[in-house]
Amino acid sequence: MPKSADAVATSVLRASALADDVSFLLARANAIALAAGNAALAEHGLKARSYSVLVLACGEARPSQRDLAEFLRLDPSQVVSLVDELQSRGLVERQPDPADRRANVVVATDAGRRLAATAGEAARGAEERVHADLASDDRETLTRLLRTLAFPSD
Amino acid sequence: MPKSADAVATSVLRASALADDVSFLLARANAIALAAGNAALAEHGLKARSYSVLVLACGEARPSQRDLAEFLRLDPSQVVSLVDELQSRGLVERQPDPADRRANVVVATDAGRRLAATAGEAARGAEERVHADLASDDRETLTRLLRTLAFPSD
Repeated sequence: MPKSADAVATSVLRASALADDVSFLLARANAIALAAGNAALAEHGLKARSYSVLVLACGEARPSQRDLAEFLRLDPSQVVSLVDELQSRGLVERQPDPADRRANVVVATDAGRRLAATAGEAARGAEERVHADLASDDRETLTRLLRTLAFPSD
Repeated sequence: MPKSADAVATSVLRASALADDVSFLLARANAIALAAGNAALAEHGLKARSYSVLVLACGEARPSQRDLAEFLRLDPSQVVSLVDELQSRGLVERQPDPADRRANVVVATDAGRRLAATAGEAARGAEERVHADLASDDRETLTRLLRTLAFPSD
């Protein structure tokens, strides 16, 4: 079976200096995972980023928008847009932070919790497909190594 | 020493359902590596993405803009902007593709090759700092596992 033009170009470019660059591999693997996550979440009206905000709003942490921006490494303005969108759909609420009257925390509504549970199955399905080429112990190793890069101050 | 507010929020959010999600860890690790790469490349007037295009234009592959978009998983319009920017600085040229007269390939100039070499040292320095917490064999393992995710059809 002849390879597609894309496959040929990719295989030639893989001989390039970039192909062993961990930052490049991270970026490409992330782009693939993001596209798969977005596709799987589309039927729930979510994308990977809005899903992440929703999941964090479901937890015990009661994050502020600033917390969300720092944790997800997004611009604060992106987080405001994501929270606006989720709030307009009745999935999260902004509530006053008892610890700081000037700040709000972002908390999922009951509808948000139900959607997070359903969408979570779709997200995990997408992740399974993305990681189908990895053995189970390789997945655990990858998770451990990525955690070291993702939270470098630990 | 008291932790910063960010550190406290991050540590609480790390107990969330998201913190073991490989896609989330990939996104966060990628954001950290991208920020470090952009910071290191700034003195050369490059960012991680324009540097990647320049490096690929230095190789033997003579990629088209479409090849670059596919390999770097960027929108074709982003690649056109990046090539425009590099071309306006005299770092790359668009040349007719001998194999397809309707297409152009992107080839680095001598100035582009010199800048790629200098900027490459800065990029590798940034990568070293990002990966400082990983042992050498862990880096090799991470590279192997990321390659599996980044090129899933292999």
